[in-house]
Amino acid sequence: MIAEVYLRTPKLTGADVDEKRREIADYFNATFDKYDLLFETLKTDQAYYQKPIPLRHPLIFYYGHTATFFVNKLLLAGLIEKRVNPKFESMFAIGVDEMSWDDLDDANYDWPSVADVKAYRQQVKKVINDIIEKAPLNLPIDWDNPWWTILMGIEHEQIHLETSSVLIRQQQLDLVQPHDAWRAWPQSGVAPQNSLVDIPAGEIRIGKAFDDPVYGWDNEYGHHQATVNQFQAAEFVVSNQEFLSFVEAGGYNNDTYWQQEGVAWRHFAKAEFPTFWLHKDDSWQLRLMTEVIDMPWDWPVEVNYHEAKAFCNWKAEQTGLAVRLPTEDEWYRMYDHCGLGELENNRAKANLHLDFAASSCPVNTFKHGELYDVVGNVWQWTETAIYPFDGFQVHPLYDDFTMPTYDGKHNLFKGGSWVSSGNESRKASRYAFRRHFFQHAGFRYVVGEEVAAPVSSNYENDKMLSEYAEFHYGDEYFGVANFSKALTDIAAELMQHKPKRKALDIGCAVGRASFELAKQFDHVTGIDFSARLINLGVQLQQQGVIRYSIADHGDIRLYKESQLASLGLDSVADKVEFLQGDACNLKPHFEGYDLILAANLIDRLYKPKLFLEQIHQRLNSGGLLMLASPYTWLEEHTEKENWLGGYKKDGENYTTFDALKDVLSTHFELVRGPESVPFVIRETTRKFQHTLSELTVWQRK
Amino acid sequence: MIAEVYLRTPKLTGADVDEKRREIADYFNATFDKYDLLFETLKTDQAYYQKPIPLRHPLIFYYGHTATFFVNKLLLAGLIEKRVNPKFESMFAIGVDEMSWDDLDDANYDWPSVADVKAYRQQVKKVINDIIEKAPLNLPIDWDNPWWTILMGIEHEQIHLETSSVLIRQQQLDLVQPHDAWRAWPQSGVAPQNSLVDIPAGEIRIGKAFDDPVYGWDNEYGHHQATVNQFQAAEFVVSNQEFLSFVEAGGYNNDTYWQQEGVAWRHFAKAEFPTFWLHKDDSWQLRLMTEVIDMPWDWPVEVNYHEAKAFCNWKAEQTGLAVRLPTEDEWYRMYDHCGLGELENNRAKANLHLDFAASSCPVNTFKHGELYDVVGNVWQWTETAIYPFDGFQVHPLYDDFTMPTYDGKHNLFKGGSWVSSGNESRKASRYAFRRHFFQHAGFRYVVGEEVAAPVSSNYENDKMLSEYAEFHYGDEYFGVANFSKALTDIAAELMQHKPKRKALDIGCAVGRASFELAKQFDHVTGIDFSARLINLGVQLQQQGVIRYSIADHGDIRLYKESQLASLGLDSVADKVEFLQGDACNLKPHFEGYDLILAANLIDRLYKPKLFLEQIHQRLNSGGLLMLASPYTWLEEHTEKENWLGGYKKDGENYTTFDALKDVLSTHFELVRGPESVPFVIRETTRKFQHTLSELTVWQRK
Repeated sequence: MIAEVYLRTPKLTGADVDEKRREIADYFNATFDKYDLLFETLKTDQAYYQKPIPLRHPLIFYYGHTATFFVNKLLLAGLIEKRVNPKFESMFAIGVDEMSWDDLDDANYDWPSVADVKAYRQQVKKVINDIIEKAPLNLPIDWDNPWWTILMGIEHEQIHLETSSVLIRQQQLDLVQPHDAWRAWPQSGVAPQNSLVDIPAGEIRIGKAFDDPVYGWDNEYGHHQATVNQFQAAEFVVSNQEFLSFVEAGGYNNDTYWQQEGVAWRHFAKAEFPTFWLHKDDSWQLRLMTEVIDMPWDWPVEVNYHEAKAFCNWKAEQTGLAVRLPTEDEWYRMYDHCGLGELENNRAKANLHLDFAASSCPVNTFKHGELYDVVGNVWQWTETAIYPFDGFQVHPLYDDFTMPTYDGKHNLFKGGSWVSSGNESRKASRYAFRRHFFQHAGFRYVVGEEVAAPVSSNYENDKMLSEYAEFHYGDEYFGVANFSKALTDIAAELMQHKPKRKALDIGCAVGRASFELAKQFDHVTGIDFSARLINLGVQLQQQGVIRYSIADHGDIRLYKESQLASLGLDSVADKVEFLQGDACNLKPHFEGYDLILAANLIDRLYKPKLFLEQIHQRLNSGGLLMLASPYTWLEEHTEKENWLGGYKKDGENYTTFDALKDVLSTHFELVRGPESVPFVIRETTRKFQHTLSELTVWQRK
Repeated sequence: MIAEVYLRTPKLTGADVDEKRREIADYFNATFDKYDLLFETLKTDQAYYQKPIPLRHPLIFYYGHTATFFVNKLLLAGLIEKRVNPKFESMFAIGVDEMSWDDLDDANYDWPSVADVKAYRQQVKKVINDIIEKAPLNLPIDWDNPWWTILMGIEHEQIHLETSSVLIRQQQLDLVQPHDAWRAWPQSGVAPQNSLVDIPAGEIRIGKAFDDPVYGWDNEYGHHQATVNQFQAAEFVVSNQEFLSFVEAGGYNNDTYWQQEGVAWRHFAKAEFPTFWLHKDDSWQLRLMTEVIDMPWDWPVEVNYHEAKAFCNWKAEQTGLAVRLPTEDEWYRMYDHCGLGELENNRAKANLHLDFAASSCPVNTFKHGELYDVVGNVWQWTETAIYPFDGFQVHPLYDDFTMPTYDGKHNLFKGGSWVSSGNESRKASRYAFRRHFFQHAGFRYVVGEEVAAPVSSNYENDKMLSEYAEFHYGDEYFGVANFSKALTDIAAELMQHKPKRKALDIGCAVGRASFELAKQFDHVTGIDFSARLINLGVQLQQQGVIRYSIADHGDIRLYKESQLASLGLDSVADKVEFLQGDACNLKPHFEGYDLILAANLIDRLYKPKLFLEQIHQRLNSGGLLMLASPYTWLEEHTEKENWLGGYKKDGENYTTFDALKDVLSTHFELVRGPESVPFVIRETTRKFQHTLSELTVWQRK
């Protein structure tokens, strides 16, 4: 047992700057020293250089990495002006994650000596202590405050404290050594019989405010609320004992319990039981950080998501119950139901934050309300692939912390393990790993109705789609008003005394004008030729939010979110129907419209004249046809013989407006325009298309 | 002989609107009726439908065409609102010019009856008389006045009066008939002996002001002045008699007298003597409009430019004199020297404007000062390919009248023939035809020093070059100041107290910044990788003017001119030296600069880092390096591994500005920026690239 409580993450607020400097210095030094202390469990230099697992760097990398991370972020924040050791900082900067099989090229790495890295860490430590002592500090420390990066560096080291402890646990046993500071929990015994506890339905509200007084990673900010239906939760997280039944039942040899991705992993890893289990002379043992012990049957089993999920499927088969993993929302419901709160400075009432031991403990040690181990002991896998809360923003100084995990492939686990410290121990924290990863992670199963698959929360990175998203829903540039809004404002003005039942937004792209029209019309049909474009509108309609990245310059990207609600469009979104269709070959039932908007459409059609010749059939008498186009005729979209105008006809320049008059005059009269409506499409932070669309409005005779 | 004088082109000015209406009506009706009268020389309907020459439409087209032209231009001007006969006006609109061999497809033409076309002409005549009677008229009639198109239509018909008279002269003899109104000159005889007359050196000034009181085609406007050196001119235009010597000397069989293009034409046409000559029973005859007569030896020979030029070369060989055709400038010098003036309303003192006969007359009939036939009788070919005067502008309602002839392939002829009327008879008029064309055209030879080949005056139509020309020298859009000017203004500010001997504009493109820098520096080197871009700068430097077309929309183009003088850069242009070169591999002698400007360059280099690492060697101590770039890194220009920034380096976003600091800090200190300098590149009338270039200025340590 450790005498002193390991320091908690500090408040970002306060009135006394010197006091805050001391508090941060203490927290920094505690964490930095704890990380050094962890590496004392390595017995020889070889332990630093021999890879614990083939797809990741050796521990020497992780030893240097957390110091280098500080330097990098402090440079970005302007708190330091030059590197401490450029060579080291190039070696230790990247490669934290599992690499691909073909990325492995040991020849590329000529790691420095352990002594040199140790010395480097001390250099960096001094630099940071100097900053904490002397750099100007304005409280509170928020996202924009340069000091945010100091907290970021400390919390980053806390994460690596945990992940390195896992790597050490995966290191060859004779390369590690027991250490007084890293003693395992001394007791184990027979596991308790698990049972199901009713968790009543309830509301959860999560997501941090941007002025929250405690440091968080970007994925914690924003807001999310949900009503969680009633479910049952296992009283205990699954113990080694409980999991053994699954192993003995041949669970690892029966693909039916496993998801497809799990089967693939199991075959690749040749897994037959949990990764830290050892099977020796017909008896089971467990690998801890620095030792192997007889299997502690009442400790939590440590598995990846696939194993946890397979267990649930087996358990469901056994019991006939809808056994599964909880969702993130359900975990928060358990947290609330059990009356838990944040860790205080006194010792935790959970196996958390290194407050007790360097290992798990029996699953019936820490009772939280009606459940055990709602937090602490082991992380608990959930069904939920991490996704951004509404209002999520990428932290600009660490834009690849969370964003790449919003890919539907990273599942959240909750509650923290015995080593989870600082931010990791907080209620709000949200860590997600690939589903085949090992940490000090196990699971609690629940019985409940089926939960919806997590919504796709991929960032749209496609150049065209993200430029369109920004064009329709993003910022304004050069003071040019949103184009869809400008057009629909004109529509509103012209339709003032006309019936407003149905509107057609033909060539709707990602749908902004369709939503805007829904503020005025009973029903709006949004049609586009491109299903990819429409999908973004549909996503916005269904989820209320889209996320996309836009190019800064080169390969650097900026991350954006757009919400229907913040545009005041959420209440009308269900009046819109998005459909894929061809403006030149539209199905007959698209008719009876009071307004048809064709924005930036006609110069992208393969037969624009055909479209114009037939469009009156779809419009009610007195209805309006709004055409806006920059008349950018290009042979890649429209064969030259089908251009409406923009050439010499009978020897004279024949403009597209001439053509519109010629084609439309039979069924329409011009009631407004031609006038220019400008729009800007952002390509990079510095490069824009700035275009003047020509608007003409035609009334059906 | 014709009793009444055929009406001259009227003044565009005046105070009495009704009087002006009458005057214009009279001129219109005289011309329209004269054109009808010309077609009375066609004996049968077949004469309208059988092509006189294979590469041009039959006469029925030309009969309808001049009426249709009126309708088209009046529509454009808004003087009429609808077509008179859309079907006719589609058939009669285009095809005036000689077509290519493979354009010929008679099947496409289903010409209407002569009677129908005659009736159509009368319809149009009535429409125009109505307009002239009733349309609002504000005097004077200038380019922007809708009535300009009425004059344009009349003068256009005057041109076709002449060209159709040539086609009739080329029609099969039995399809035409003599006509009282089109009688040939009655006399002919022995040609006078030609001799050379000294024309003293003198100044000429030509080019019409835009408020000139008489209608002109766009090519006549602007200004041109030159000093014409002394030369000798043949007293008479070359007669059939004088030309016969060349024919009899085997001139048509000796390629050495002919230019390459002339040889090609002669072989294609199988020409052995002038086109209107007939060789019958060992005697020579001449085809006139409606008859064949015994060769009038003292009439001017009618030839194309190639034949005239070959004669001169033969004559030079014979005489040992520098015989050639006159230039346009020399023709004006003869005009001035001989004391000629514009035609008045009384009968001409020249065989011009149909004042005497429907044919040439003896070359010794009309004496003008020391020469004969300075105007009238036959057009006289010159050495000069038509080019635009300074200040030339394309008339927007007839943008393909002149512009396509600025291709170096259309030579001017001057002075007019017996049928040249209206504008054709004016001193300022400038008609140019392909060099192999026949009109009622001959030549006068001169003896004088060699003249410079006409300058290229092609319009630059290449998309990239013309966009660059507009970017550097053209209009401003969205209120964004000229980019080159904005940068060199900043340079001027920063260099205020520094030596300004030499500046380098690296990546100078079409050179605006080089010229701007020459206002401050003693010498400017402009270097670009693209010879095509540099050539435009060189052209501007040498000729003071460039002309280019920019896209309106689709294929419609607008025509622009930029002059160094109007930008205040003409006096410094000779301080600039433009060179082709590679910024990444610059020759060592480009050094010792006080300023180096690299505008929008670095993100187009294949090795930008190499450029930056070496550039200090070329800069004097204390000198400035100005870098401006939108950092638009593209793999098509720069392999990704060579991008300066715009990617993650050691795990962090590494911007191009970061890279500039890293690469330049050894030899430079940052003295200004980063700041944004915007620029706009116009693609069409409605589509623009709007970009923010990042400027940083670095002082050499």
